[in-house]
Amino acid sequence: MSRKLLGIDLGGTTVKFGILTLEGEVQEKWAIETNTLDAGKHIVPDIIASIKHRLDMYGLSKEDFIGIGMGSPGAVDRQENTVTGAFNLNWKEKQEVGSIIEKEVGIPFSIDNDANVAALGEGWIGAGNNNPDVVFMTLGTGVGGGIIADGNLIHGVAGAGGEIGHMIVEPINGFACTCGSYGCLETVASATGVVKVARLLAEAYEGSSQIKAAIDNGENITSKDIFVAAESGDSFANSVVEKVSFYLGLASANIANILNPDSIVIGGGVSAAGEFLRSRIEQYFLKFTFPQVKLSTQIKIAKLGNDAGIIGAASLAKQFLTK
Amino acid sequence: MSRKLLGIDLGGTTVKFGILTLEGEVQEKWAIETNTLDAGKHIVPDIIASIKHRLDMYGLSKEDFIGIGMGSPGAVDRQENTVTGAFNLNWKEKQEVGSIIEKEVGIPFSIDNDANVAALGEGWIGAGNNNPDVVFMTLGTGVGGGIIADGNLIHGVAGAGGEIGHMIVEPINGFACTCGSYGCLETVASATGVVKVARLLAEAYEGSSQIKAAIDNGENITSKDIFVAAESGDSFANSVVEKVSFYLGLASANIANILNPDSIVIGGGVSAAGEFLRSRIEQYFLKFTFPQVKLSTQIKIAKLGNDAGIIGAASLAKQFLTK
Repeated sequence: MSRKLLGIDLGGTTVKFGILTLEGEVQEKWAIETNTLDAGKHIVPDIIASIKHRLDMYGLSKEDFIGIGMGSPGAVDRQENTVTGAFNLNWKEKQEVGSIIEKEVGIPFSIDNDANVAALGEGWIGAGNNNPDVVFMTLGTGVGGGIIADGNLIHGVAGAGGEIGHMIVEPINGFACTCGSYGCLETVASATGVVKVARLLAEAYEGSSQIKAAIDNGENITSKDIFVAAESGDSFANSVVEKVSFYLGLASANIANILNPDSIVIGGGVSAAGEFLRSRIEQYFLKFTFPQVKLSTQIKIAKLGNDAGIIGAASLAKQFLTK
Repeated sequence: MSRKLLGIDLGGTTVKFGILTLEGEVQEKWAIETNTLDAGKHIVPDIIASIKHRLDMYGLSKEDFIGIGMGSPGAVDRQENTVTGAFNLNWKEKQEVGSIIEKEVGIPFSIDNDANVAALGEGWIGAGNNNPDVVFMTLGTGVGGGIIADGNLIHGVAGAGGEIGHMIVEPINGFACTCGSYGCLETVASATGVVKVARLLAEAYEGSSQIKAAIDNGENITSKDIFVAAESGDSFANSVVEKVSFYLGLASANIANILNPDSIVIGGGVSAAGEFLRSRIEQYFLKFTFPQVKLSTQIKIAKLGNDAGIIGAASLAKQFLTK
């Protein structure tokens, strides 16, 4: 039997698992709830128990696997295979992860942060088509990302590489960001950022608009409401999408002007707006890039959805192939 | 005798040569004029003749060398070792470079573009201290750059990686750039860009200033004049340096927010302003970066001056060590 990869996508709500071929085909996948009680001390044992249980169920043993890869929130130490400060897991202190899983399961283990791992997944099997130069941007509760350049995931000197959400796109009058800066991409292009842009633009807008009316009435609106209204012809909502696309196009252009990737892949909840959003971003991207980049770097929507995490995590384990 | 590297820095005025140890020590260096007559057809033969002459002079033979590396202007094909569109050399059409030099000199040859090669030099022996994550920015007639990330020079899918000068720092009312975009870093931070910023700010400035007076009198001023006046207390010149530093700090911060390099090294003629400029850029850099990057990425002034080219070129030849 050909040997397999095991990918684990650790999140605050569920832990997703996938058994993949070396070519990235998902053969089995399952998920368990993340039990964050007691400072998250059940998480690693639950993962181990679930792996053992499924391997039994599928008639597989540790010899069938090349390795295990995992994507995790928080600050990941890739040498020590530990995680620190993953607040949605209740892991405030340093947590041993890899050493315990390797000992209990007997398969080599590798870990990286969740946004980087999703970038690896989209870069390998998803919209990136296995190109060695792919940038992934995820627009969700926050804005995260991962950068693959010349075939390597870029971590930087302190592991802060790929933090696309903290590029400054509004240096003069930007919104305050949780990071302490003002005008970060995350403050205008995350799900909550899109709503912030809408609230600001609503102050000056004078036409009729459902969305503007909802904001003025103090109703809760979501980024999805805004995209749906914009597609239905609400011109206020449209002006919000235009402004958000300007910021995303500017940030994408500045990434491409210095890295010239094959593609910038946009994923996460906000990217559900699909081609409607992609084409708008592309307009500004083409305005802000120089000729060689215009011709060679593409803006794409992510393909893998929720599977990006397990697929990218599994790809981490390919490193054990030559060892 | 230990084996050596030969580095060649090909420019529009001179061709510089260096013989280096594997540790990057320059043992010999010399230069010849670049003869751009007759569509630049003398350049490669002149380089070959100069290498042969010097090797004779120093009593060295091809066996003493691991390889030759070269930095060139224009569009470099690193697989074919050719150069196209190097207008300051009069090489409009594709020019065979590596194949001819290898055949005539008998030493393995490698080539990359001049800004990338300077980045390799500063990254290896210069301000980068051989760190695997170093970004180099050169402020001269134009603004160029090179990015070393996770130990690799980033070329991108079409070889346009590292074009820091075309990051957009003024997306709304920027100056036109030669690349066709508006608001590129090069339009405000190259030697001519600094003067453009001064001309724009002069329109609204009302105090007394030598520099403002010179602009209003239609005199030619240089970026150096502006930096010298600013250091001497000319408050108009100071406002120009402040604005240029804002742009450089913003661009540096956005590079660091996504790549988190150990350092961003600033070289080129404009960087002769030294600590006066560096500290100003750093103020804006610290304003626009998030905490992990503030703590781990530094802004530095380049150390190697004109030698960055031959040193970086020589470093290209280290790849032949294992072959």
